[in-house]
Amino acid sequence: MLSKNQIKLIKSLSQKKFRSQHSLFTVEGVKGITEFINSTFSLNQIYTLDNIFDVDGSKVTLISDSDLKKVTQLKNPNTAIGVFEIPKSEVIDNSKLIVALDDVRDPGNLGTIIRLCDWFGVKDLVCSKATVDCFNSKVVQATMGSLTRVNISYLDLHNFLSDSKKEVFGTFMDGENIYNAELSKSGILVLGNEANGISKTIESKVTRELGIPRFGNLKATESLNVATATAICLSEFKRKTI
Amino acid sequence: MLSKNQIKLIKSLSQKKFRSQHSLFTVEGVKGITEFINSTFSLNQIYTLDNIFDVDGSKVTLISDSDLKKVTQLKNPNTAIGVFEIPKSEVIDNSKLIVALDDVRDPGNLGTIIRLCDWFGVKDLVCSKATVDCFNSKVVQATMGSLTRVNISYLDLHNFLSDSKKEVFGTFMDGENIYNAELSKSGILVLGNEANGISKTIESKVTRELGIPRFGNLKATESLNVATATAICLSEFKRKTI
Repeated sequence: MLSKNQIKLIKSLSQKKFRSQHSLFTVEGVKGITEFINSTFSLNQIYTLDNIFDVDGSKVTLISDSDLKKVTQLKNPNTAIGVFEIPKSEVIDNSKLIVALDDVRDPGNLGTIIRLCDWFGVKDLVCSKATVDCFNSKVVQATMGSLTRVNISYLDLHNFLSDSKKEVFGTFMDGENIYNAELSKSGILVLGNEANGISKTIESKVTRELGIPRFGNLKATESLNVATATAICLSEFKRKTI
Repeated sequence: MLSKNQIKLIKSLSQKKFRSQHSLFTVEGVKGITEFINSTFSLNQIYTLDNIFDVDGSKVTLISDSDLKKVTQLKNPNTAIGVFEIPKSEVIDNSKLIVALDDVRDPGNLGTIIRLCDWFGVKDLVCSKATVDCFNSKVVQATMGSLTRVNISYLDLHNFLSDSKKEVFGTFMDGENIYNAELSKSGILVLGNEANGISKTIESKVTRELGIPRFGNLKATESLNVATATAICLSEFKRKTI
Protein backbone atom coordinates (compact mmCIF):
# COMPACT_ATOMS: atom_id res chain seq x y z
CA MET A 1 0.00 0.00 0.00
CA LEU A 2 1.39 3.35 -1.00
CA SER A 3 0.85 6.57 0.94
CA LYS A 4 -0.03 9.79 -0.86
CA ASN A 5 3.43 11.13 -0.07
CA GLN A 6 5.13 8.04 -1.50
CA ILE A 7 3.08 8.33 -4.70
CA LYS A 8 3.96 12.02 -4.95
CA LEU A 9 7.67 11.32 -4.43
CA ILE A 10 7.92 8.48 -6.97
CA LYS A 11 5.94 10.40 -9.60
CA SER A 12 8.06 13.50 -9.07
CA LEU A 13 11.17 11.51 -10.07
CA SER A 14 10.03 11.67 -13.70
CA GLN A 15 11.33 15.27 -13.60
CA LYS A 16 15.03 16.11 -13.50
CA LYS A 17 14.46 18.91 -10.97
CA PHE A 18 13.07 16.46 -8.38
CA ARG A 19 15.62 13.75 -9.18
CA SER A 20 18.36 16.29 -8.36
CA GLN A 21 16.54 17.53 -5.25
CA HIS A 22 16.08 14.01 -3.78
CA SER A 23 19.16 12.49 -5.44
CA LEU A 24 16.97 9.54 -6.46
CA PHE A 25 15.88 7.97 -9.76
CA THR A 26 13.62 5.11 -10.85
CA VAL A 27 14.22 1.84 -12.68
CA GLU A 28 11.24 -0.14 -13.98
CA GLY A 29 11.13 -3.88 -14.55
CA VAL A 30 12.56 -6.88 -12.71
CA LYS A 31 15.56 -7.33 -15.03
CA GLY A 32 16.67 -3.71 -14.81
CA ILE A 33 16.14 -3.52 -11.05
CA THR A 34 18.18 -6.70 -10.56
CA GLU A 35 21.06 -5.24 -12.60
CA PHE A 36 21.12 -2.15 -10.38
CA ILE A 37 20.88 -4.24 -7.18
CA ASN A 38 23.93 -6.22 -8.34
CA SER A 39 25.92 -3.06 -9.03
CA THR A 40 27.54 -0.43 -6.83
CA PHE A 41 24.32 1.64 -6.84
CA SER A 42 22.49 2.02 -3.50
CA LEU A 43 18.90 0.85 -3.35
CA ASN A 44 16.41 3.19 -1.69
CA GLN A 45 13.23 1.12 -2.03
CA ILE A 46 11.53 -1.39 -4.35
CA TYR A 47 7.77 -1.12 -4.93
CA THR A 48 6.58 -4.42 -6.31
CA LEU A 49 3.57 -6.72 -6.81
CA ASP A 50 5.62 -9.74 -5.62
CA ASN A 51 8.75 -9.83 -3.50
CA ILE A 52 11.09 -11.77 -5.77
CA PHE A 53 14.16 -9.68 -4.96
CA ASP A 54 17.15 -10.84 -2.93
CA VAL A 55 17.41 -7.75 -0.72
CA ASP A 56 16.78 -6.72 2.93
CA GLY A 57 13.01 -6.94 3.54
CA SER A 58 12.87 -3.36 4.84
CA LYS A 59 13.79 -2.24 1.32
CA VAL A 60 10.71 -3.83 -0.26
CA THR A 61 7.17 -2.44 -0.25
CA LEU A 62 4.41 -4.64 -1.64
CA ILE A 63 1.95 -2.64 -3.70
CA SER A 64 -1.21 -3.30 -5.68
CA ASP A 65 -1.67 -3.19 -9.43
CA SER A 66 -3.60 0.07 -9.13
CA ASP A 67 -0.78 1.66 -7.08
CA LEU A 68 1.74 0.60 -9.73
CA LYS A 69 -0.37 2.25 -12.41
CA LYS A 70 -0.30 5.50 -10.41
CA VAL A 71 3.51 5.70 -10.29
CA THR A 72 4.73 4.08 -13.52
CA GLN A 73 6.12 6.09 -16.42
CA LEU A 74 5.48 3.21 -18.84
CA LYS A 75 2.40 2.60 -20.97
CA ASN A 76 2.55 -1.07 -20.08
CA PRO A 77 4.01 -1.21 -16.58
CA ASN A 78 6.10 -4.17 -15.49
CA THR A 79 5.54 -5.65 -12.01
CA ALA A 80 8.02 -3.53 -10.06
CA ILE A 81 9.58 -0.10 -9.81
CA GLY A 82 12.87 0.45 -8.03
CA VAL A 83 14.07 3.71 -6.53
CA PHE A 84 17.87 4.07 -6.36
CA GLU A 85 20.24 6.76 -5.17
CA ILE A 86 22.03 8.84 -7.78
CA PRO A 87 25.73 8.17 -7.14
CA LYS A 88 28.39 10.85 -7.05
CA SER A 89 30.47 10.82 -10.23
CA GLU A 90 33.86 9.19 -9.79
CA VAL A 91 37.13 10.91 -10.65
CA ILE A 92 37.71 10.91 -14.42
CA ASP A 93 40.63 8.74 -15.59
CA ASN A 94 42.59 10.88 -18.06
CA SER A 95 44.90 8.05 -19.09
CA LYS A 96 42.17 6.32 -21.12
CA LEU A 97 39.91 7.32 -24.00
CA ILE A 98 37.04 9.53 -22.79
CA VAL A 99 33.83 10.18 -24.74
CA ALA A 100 32.34 13.70 -24.43
CA LEU A 101 28.90 14.84 -25.58
CA ASP A 102 28.15 18.41 -26.62
CA ASP A 103 24.39 18.80 -25.97
CA VAL A 104 23.00 15.41 -27.08
CA ARG A 105 19.27 15.80 -26.46
CA ASP A 106 17.59 12.53 -27.39
CA PRO A 107 17.28 9.98 -24.53
CA GLY A 108 17.46 7.06 -26.97
CA ASN A 109 20.71 8.37 -28.43
CA LEU A 110 22.26 8.87 -24.98
CA GLY A 111 21.14 5.37 -23.94
CA THR A 112 22.71 3.85 -27.05
CA ILE A 113 25.94 5.79 -26.51
CA ILE A 114 26.18 4.58 -22.88
CA ARG A 115 25.77 0.97 -24.12
CA LEU A 116 28.49 1.58 -26.73
CA CYS A 117 30.88 2.96 -24.07
CA ASP A 118 30.24 -0.16 -22.00
CA TRP A 119 30.80 -2.48 -25.02
CA PHE A 120 34.01 -0.75 -26.07
CA GLY A 121 35.42 -0.44 -22.55
CA VAL A 122 35.15 3.34 -22.29
CA LYS A 123 34.97 4.04 -18.54
CA ASP A 124 34.27 7.77 -18.61
CA LEU A 125 31.48 9.62 -20.41
CA VAL A 126 31.52 13.39 -19.99
CA CYS A 127 28.34 15.34 -20.80
CA SER A 128 27.81 19.05 -21.30
CA LYS A 129 25.24 20.44 -18.87
CA ALA A 130 22.60 20.72 -21.63
CA THR A 131 22.93 17.02 -22.54
CA VAL A 132 19.83 15.01 -21.59
CA ASP A 133 19.97 13.65 -18.01
CA CYS A 134 21.27 10.07 -17.87
CA PHE A 135 18.77 9.27 -15.06
CA ASN A 136 15.83 10.18 -17.32
CA SER A 137 13.70 7.01 -17.31
CA LYS A 138 13.92 6.59 -21.09
CA VAL A 139 17.72 6.62 -20.87
CA VAL A 140 17.68 4.16 -17.97
CA GLN A 141 15.44 1.80 -19.98
CA ALA A 142 17.58 2.15 -23.12
CA THR A 143 20.90 1.40 -21.43
CA MET A 144 19.98 -2.14 -20.32
CA GLY A 145 22.19 -1.92 -17.25
CA SER A 146 25.21 -0.35 -18.92
CA LEU A 147 24.53 2.73 -16.80
CA THR A 148 25.91 0.75 -13.84
CA ARG A 149 29.29 0.30 -15.56
CA VAL A 150 30.04 3.71 -17.11
CA ASN A 151 31.05 6.74 -15.01
CA ILE A 152 29.03 9.73 -16.25
CA SER A 153 29.95 13.32 -15.32
CA TYR A 154 27.94 16.46 -16.15
CA LEU A 155 30.17 19.52 -16.28
CA ASP A 156 31.07 22.65 -18.18
CA LEU A 157 32.45 20.97 -21.32
CA HIS A 158 34.36 24.03 -22.52
CA ASN A 159 36.23 24.33 -19.21
CA PHE A 160 36.86 20.59 -19.11
CA LEU A 161 38.42 20.62 -22.58
CA SER A 162 40.40 23.80 -21.81
CA ASP A 163 41.92 22.17 -18.74
CA SER A 164 42.77 18.92 -20.52
CA LYS A 165 46.32 18.27 -21.68
CA LYS A 166 45.13 15.48 -24.01
CA GLU A 167 44.32 15.40 -27.71
CA VAL A 168 40.68 16.42 -28.33
CA PHE A 169 39.13 14.56 -31.29
CA GLY A 170 35.88 15.75 -32.86
CA THR A 171 33.79 14.47 -35.78
CA PHE A 172 33.07 16.81 -38.69
CA MET A 173 31.72 16.36 -42.22
CA ASP A 174 35.04 17.43 -43.77
CA GLY A 175 37.43 16.04 -41.14
CA GLU A 176 40.43 13.76 -41.75
CA ASN A 177 39.38 10.28 -42.98
CA ILE A 178 39.07 8.30 -39.73
CA TYR A 179 40.03 5.03 -41.49
CA ASN A 180 43.49 6.39 -42.33
CA ALA A 181 43.97 8.53 -39.21
CA GLU A 182 46.42 7.57 -36.50
CA LEU A 183 44.42 7.35 -33.29
CA SER A 184 45.56 7.13 -29.68
CA LYS A 185 44.70 5.08 -26.58
CA SER A 186 43.95 8.20 -24.60
CA GLY A 187 42.34 11.52 -25.43
CA ILE A 188 38.83 12.88 -25.61
CA LEU A 189 36.39 12.07 -28.43
CA VAL A 190 33.67 14.77 -28.76
CA LEU A 191 30.32 14.07 -30.44
CA GLY A 192 27.85 16.87 -31.17
CA ASN A 193 24.19 17.74 -30.93
CA GLU A 194 21.67 15.93 -33.20
CA ALA A 195 20.69 19.03 -35.20
CA ASN A 196 23.75 21.28 -35.01
CA GLY A 197 26.74 19.00 -34.51
CA ILE A 198 29.63 20.34 -32.42
CA SER A 199 29.13 23.99 -31.41
CA LYS A 200 31.63 26.68 -32.43
CA THR A 201 32.74 27.20 -28.81
CA ILE A 202 33.55 23.52 -28.39
CA GLU A 203 35.08 23.24 -31.88
CA SER A 204 37.67 25.83 -30.84
CA LYS A 205 38.97 23.27 -28.33
CA VAL A 206 39.17 20.38 -30.81
CA THR A 207 42.75 19.59 -31.80
CA ARG A 208 42.02 16.80 -34.35
CA GLU A 209 39.02 16.96 -36.71
CA LEU A 210 37.97 13.50 -37.88
CA GLY A 211 35.43 12.53 -40.55
CA ILE A 212 33.60 9.34 -41.46
CA PRO A 213 33.77 9.03 -45.26
CA ARG A 214 30.51 8.74 -47.16
CA PHE A 215 30.46 5.94 -49.70
CA GLY A 216 27.02 6.62 -51.20
CA ASN A 217 26.29 8.97 -54.11
CA LEU A 218 26.42 12.76 -53.93
CA LYS A 219 22.76 13.06 -53.07
CA ALA A 220 23.20 10.70 -50.15
CA THR A 221 22.03 11.30 -46.60
CA GLU A 222 23.36 14.51 -45.08
CA SER A 223 24.63 13.09 -41.84
CA LEU A 224 24.83 10.04 -39.65
CA ASN A 225 22.83 9.80 -36.46
CA VAL A 226 25.05 10.70 -33.47
CA ALA A 227 24.73 7.20 -31.95
CA THR A 228 25.79 5.44 -35.18
CA ALA A 229 28.66 7.93 -35.60
CA THR A 230 29.77 7.08 -32.05
CA ALA A 231 29.63 3.36 -32.91
CA ILE A 232 31.87 3.81 -35.94
CA CYS A 233 34.36 6.08 -34.13
CA LEU A 234 34.71 3.82 -31.08
CA SER A 235 35.10 0.80 -33.37
CA GLU A 236 38.01 2.58 -35.13
CA PHE A 237 39.68 3.79 -31.90
CA LYS A 238 39.53 0.36 -30.28
CA ARG A 239 40.49 -1.61 -33.37
CA LYS A 240 43.60 0.52 -33.86
CA THR A 241 44.83 0.93 -30.29
CA ILE A 242 44.35 -2.43 -28.60
CA MET B 1 -11.48 20.91 -47.57
CA LEU B 2 -11.34 17.16 -47.09
CA SER B 3 -14.19 14.79 -47.84
CA LYS B 4 -15.09 12.01 -45.41
CA ASN B 5 -13.71 9.50 -47.90
CA GLN B 6 -10.40 11.32 -48.21
CA ILE B 7 -10.05 11.46 -44.41
CA LYS B 8 -10.86 7.75 -44.22
CA LEU B 9 -8.29 6.90 -46.93
CA ILE B 10 -5.44 8.97 -45.46
CA LYS B 11 -6.06 7.71 -41.93
CA SER B 12 -6.22 4.11 -43.16
CA LEU B 13 -2.64 4.44 -44.48
CA SER B 14 -1.35 4.24 -40.91
CA GLN B 15 -2.02 0.49 -41.23
CA LYS B 16 0.11 -1.80 -43.38
CA LYS B 17 -2.95 -3.69 -44.64
CA PHE B 18 -4.40 -0.56 -46.21
CA ARG B 19 -1.03 0.69 -47.49
CA SER B 20 -0.70 -2.60 -49.37
CA GLN B 21 -4.32 -2.50 -50.60
CA HIS B 22 -4.04 1.05 -51.99
CA SER B 23 -0.30 0.88 -52.73
CA LEU B 24 0.06 4.29 -51.06
CA PHE B 25 1.89 5.67 -48.03
CA THR B 26 2.18 9.04 -46.27
CA VAL B 27 5.05 11.45 -45.64
CA GLU B 28 4.60 14.29 -43.14
CA GLY B 29 6.41 17.61 -43.19
CA VAL B 30 7.58 19.96 -45.95
CA LYS B 31 11.22 18.76 -45.93
CA GLY B 32 10.33 15.08 -46.25
CA ILE B 33 7.65 15.67 -48.89
CA THR B 34 10.09 17.75 -50.96
CA GLU B 35 12.67 14.93 -50.82
CA PHE B 36 10.11 12.46 -52.15
CA ILE B 37 8.92 14.91 -54.87
CA ASN B 38 12.54 15.25 -56.04
CA SER B 39 13.00 11.46 -56.20
CA THR B 40 11.70 8.75 -58.50
CA PHE B 41 8.63 8.24 -56.28
CA SER B 42 5.23 9.15 -57.79
CA LEU B 43 3.16 11.72 -55.97
CA ASN B 44 -0.50 10.92 -55.47
CA GLN B 45 -1.63 14.05 -53.59
CA ILE B 46 -0.38 16.67 -51.13
CA TYR B 47 -2.74 17.91 -48.42
CA THR B 48 -1.37 21.19 -47.10
CA LEU B 49 -2.19 24.41 -45.25
CA ASP B 50 -0.21 26.45 -47.85
CA ASN B 51 0.73 25.52 -51.42
CA ILE B 52 4.48 25.97 -51.28
CA PHE B 53 5.25 22.91 -53.43
CA ASP B 54 6.60 23.00 -56.98
CA VAL B 55 4.16 20.42 -58.45
CA ASP B 56 1.14 20.30 -60.79
CA GLY B 57 -1.74 22.17 -59.09
CA SER B 58 -4.10 19.21 -59.50
CA LYS B 59 -1.84 17.30 -57.10
CA VAL B 60 -2.36 19.79 -54.26
CA THR B 61 -5.38 20.04 -51.95
CA LEU B 62 -5.54 22.97 -49.54
CA ILE B 63 -6.85 21.91 -46.14
CA SER B 64 -7.58 23.53 -42.81
CA ASP B 65 -5.71 23.09 -39.57
CA SER B 66 -8.59 21.01 -38.17
CA ASP B 67 -8.52 18.71 -41.25
CA LEU B 68 -4.78 18.22 -40.77
CA LYS B 69 -5.34 17.23 -37.16
CA LYS B 70 -7.83 14.58 -38.33
CA VAL B 71 -5.36 12.82 -40.65
CA THR B 72 -1.94 13.30 -39.04
CA GLN B 73 -0.10 10.50 -37.26
CA LEU B 74 2.07 12.98 -35.38
CA LYS B 75 1.44 14.51 -31.97
CA ASN B 76 2.58 17.88 -33.29
CA PRO B 77 1.58 17.87 -36.96
CA ASN B 78 3.63 19.81 -39.49
CA THR B 79 1.82 21.89 -42.15
CA ALA B 80 1.48 19.24 -44.86
CA ILE B 81 0.94 15.54 -45.47
CA GLY B 82 1.94 13.95 -48.77
CA VAL B 83 0.52 10.73 -50.17
CA PHE B 84 2.89 8.85 -52.48
CA GLU B 85 2.69 5.60 -54.44
CA ILE B 86 4.60 2.60 -53.10
CA PRO B 87 7.06 1.75 -55.89
CA LYS B 88 7.72 -1.77 -57.18
CA SER B 89 11.04 -3.07 -55.87
CA GLU B 90 13.81 -2.97 -58.47
CA VAL B 91 15.85 -6.02 -59.47
CA ILE B 92 18.48 -6.81 -56.81
CA ASP B 93 22.09 -6.27 -57.93
CA ASN B 94 24.01 -9.37 -56.82
CA SER B 95 27.40 -7.95 -57.78
CA LYS B 96 27.43 -5.56 -54.83
CA LEU B 97 27.16 -5.91 -51.05
CA ILE B 98 23.55 -6.51 -49.98
CA VAL B 99 22.20 -6.02 -46.44
CA ALA B 100 19.54 -8.51 -45.29
CA LEU B 101 17.36 -8.26 -42.17
CA ASP B 102 15.97 -11.28 -40.36
CA ASP B 103 12.83 -9.96 -38.62
CA VAL B 104 13.93 -6.52 -37.42
CA ARG B 105 10.84 -5.22 -35.62
CA ASP B 106 11.60 -1.71 -34.38
CA PRO B 107 10.75 1.13 -36.84
CA GLY B 108 13.54 3.34 -35.45
CA ASN B 109 16.11 0.57 -36.01
CA LEU B 110 14.93 -0.03 -39.60
CA GLY B 111 15.00 3.74 -40.29
CA THR B 112 18.57 3.99 -38.96
CA ILE B 113 19.66 0.95 -41.02
CA ILE B 114 18.19 2.48 -44.21
CA ARG B 115 20.16 5.71 -43.52
CA LEU B 116 23.31 3.64 -42.97
CA CYS B 117 22.80 1.79 -46.29
CA ASP B 118 22.46 5.15 -48.02
CA TRP B 119 25.58 6.56 -46.31
CA PHE B 120 27.70 3.51 -47.10
CA GLY B 121 26.46 3.15 -50.70
CA VAL B 122 24.53 -0.09 -50.18
CA LYS B 123 21.90 -0.11 -52.94
CA ASP B 124 19.91 -3.16 -51.92
CA LEU B 125 18.27 -3.89 -48.58
CA VAL B 126 16.47 -7.24 -48.37
CA CYS B 127 13.94 -7.77 -45.57
CA SER B 128 12.32 -10.95 -44.30
CA LYS B 129 8.54 -10.77 -44.49
CA ALA B 130 8.22 -10.31 -40.71
CA THR B 131 10.52 -7.26 -40.73
CA VAL B 132 8.67 -4.01 -39.95
CA ASP B 133 7.23 -2.33 -43.07
CA CYS B 134 9.54 0.36 -44.48
CA PHE B 135 6.50 2.52 -45.36
CA ASN B 136 5.41 2.62 -41.70
CA SER B 137 5.26 6.35 -40.91
CA LYS B 138 7.82 6.07 -38.09
CA VAL B 139 10.30 4.49 -40.50
CA VAL B 140 9.60 7.14 -43.15
CA GLN B 141 10.24 9.91 -40.57
CA ALA B 142 13.42 8.23 -39.29
CA THR B 143 15.01 7.75 -42.73
CA MET B 144 15.21 11.46 -43.54
CA GLY B 145 14.82 10.82 -47.29
CA SER B 146 17.25 7.89 -47.51
CA LEU B 147 14.23 5.73 -48.35
CA THR B 148 14.26 7.34 -51.82
CA ARG B 149 17.79 6.08 -52.50
CA VAL B 150 17.79 2.48 -51.21
CA ASN B 151 15.99 -0.36 -53.04
CA ILE B 152 14.08 -2.36 -50.41
CA SER B 153 12.66 -5.83 -51.15
CA TYR B 154 10.46 -7.91 -48.84
CA LEU B 155 10.79 -11.61 -49.61
CA ASP B 156 11.22 -15.09 -48.17
CA LEU B 157 14.72 -14.61 -46.74
CA HIS B 158 15.45 -18.34 -46.46
CA ASN B 159 14.67 -18.91 -50.15
CA PHE B 160 16.61 -15.80 -51.18
CA LEU B 161 19.72 -17.00 -49.32
CA SER B 162 19.28 -20.56 -50.63
CA ASP B 163 19.22 -19.29 -54.22
CA SER B 164 22.22 -17.00 -53.77
CA LYS B 165 25.62 -18.08 -55.05
CA LYS B 166 27.34 -15.43 -52.91
CA GLU B 167 28.99 -15.55 -49.52
CA VAL B 168 26.44 -15.03 -46.73
CA PHE B 169 27.88 -13.13 -43.73
CA GLY B 170 26.08 -13.07 -40.40
CA THR B 171 26.90 -11.46 -37.03
CA PHE B 172 27.14 -13.68 -33.96
CA MET B 173 28.48 -13.24 -30.42
CA ASP B 174 31.23 -15.83 -31.02
CA GLY B 175 31.92 -15.19 -34.71
CA GLU B 176 35.30 -14.50 -36.34
CA ASN B 177 36.76 -11.11 -35.26
CA ILE B 178 35.46 -8.72 -37.94
CA TYR B 179 38.51 -6.46 -37.59
CA ASN B 180 40.84 -9.25 -38.78
CA ALA B 181 38.43 -10.93 -41.21
CA GLU B 182 38.92 -10.71 -44.96
CA LEU B 183 35.73 -9.20 -46.35
CA SER B 184 34.47 -8.95 -49.92
CA LYS B 185 32.92 -6.29 -52.16
CA SER B 186 29.92 -8.49 -52.84
CA GLY B 187 27.94 -10.89 -50.73
CA ILE B 188 25.05 -10.67 -48.30
CA LEU B 189 25.36 -9.33 -44.74
CA VAL B 190 22.57 -10.66 -42.48
CA LEU B 191 21.53 -8.86 -39.27
CA GLY B 192 19.09 -10.45 -36.83
CA ASN B 193 16.05 -9.66 -34.71
CA GLU B 194 16.42 -7.33 -31.70
CA ALA B 195 15.63 -9.98 -29.07
CA ASN B 196 16.66 -13.24 -30.71
CA GLY B 197 19.40 -12.40 -33.20
CA ILE B 198 19.61 -14.49 -36.37
CA SER B 199 17.14 -17.40 -36.33
CA LYS B 200 18.32 -21.02 -36.60
CA THR B 201 16.74 -21.41 -40.06
CA ILE B 202 18.59 -18.40 -41.42
CA GLU B 203 21.82 -19.30 -39.57
CA SER B 204 21.90 -22.56 -41.57
CA LYS B 205 22.38 -20.45 -44.71
CA VAL B 206 25.19 -18.29 -43.27
CA THR B 207 28.59 -19.24 -44.72
CA ARG B 208 30.76 -16.80 -42.68
CA GLU B 209 30.03 -16.04 -39.02
CA LEU B 210 31.45 -12.65 -37.98
CA GLY B 211 31.66 -11.11 -34.51
CA ILE B 212 32.28 -7.62 -33.18
CA PRO B 213 34.78 -7.98 -30.30
CA ARG B 214 33.78 -6.63 -26.93
CA PHE B 215 36.41 -4.44 -25.28
CA GLY B 216 34.64 -3.86 -21.97
CA ASN B 217 34.88 -6.08 -18.89
CA LEU B 218 33.30 -9.50 -18.51
CA LYS B 219 30.12 -8.11 -17.01
CA ALA B 220 29.71 -5.76 -19.96
CA THR B 221 26.54 -5.28 -21.99
CA GLU B 222 25.21 -8.49 -23.49
CA SER B 223 24.78 -7.29 -27.04
CA LEU B 224 24.91 -4.31 -29.32
CA ASN B 225 21.73 -2.79 -30.69
CA VAL B 226 21.10 -4.09 -34.26
CA ALA B 227 21.45 -0.60 -35.78
CA THR B 228 24.81 0.07 -34.11
CA ALA B 229 26.01 -3.42 -35.10
CA THR B 230 25.03 -2.60 -38.70
CA ALA B 231 27.01 0.67 -38.49
CA ILE B 232 30.16 -1.13 -37.33
CA CYS B 233 29.84 -3.95 -39.91
CA LEU B 234 29.23 -1.61 -42.87
CA SER B 235 32.12 0.58 -41.72
CA GLU B 236 34.41 -2.50 -41.77
CA PHE B 237 33.14 -3.80 -45.16
CA LYS B 238 33.53 -0.44 -46.86
CA ARG B 239 36.85 0.46 -45.28
CA LYS B 240 38.39 -2.82 -46.40
CA THR B 241 36.96 -3.18 -49.90
CA ILE B 242 37.02 0.31 -51.45
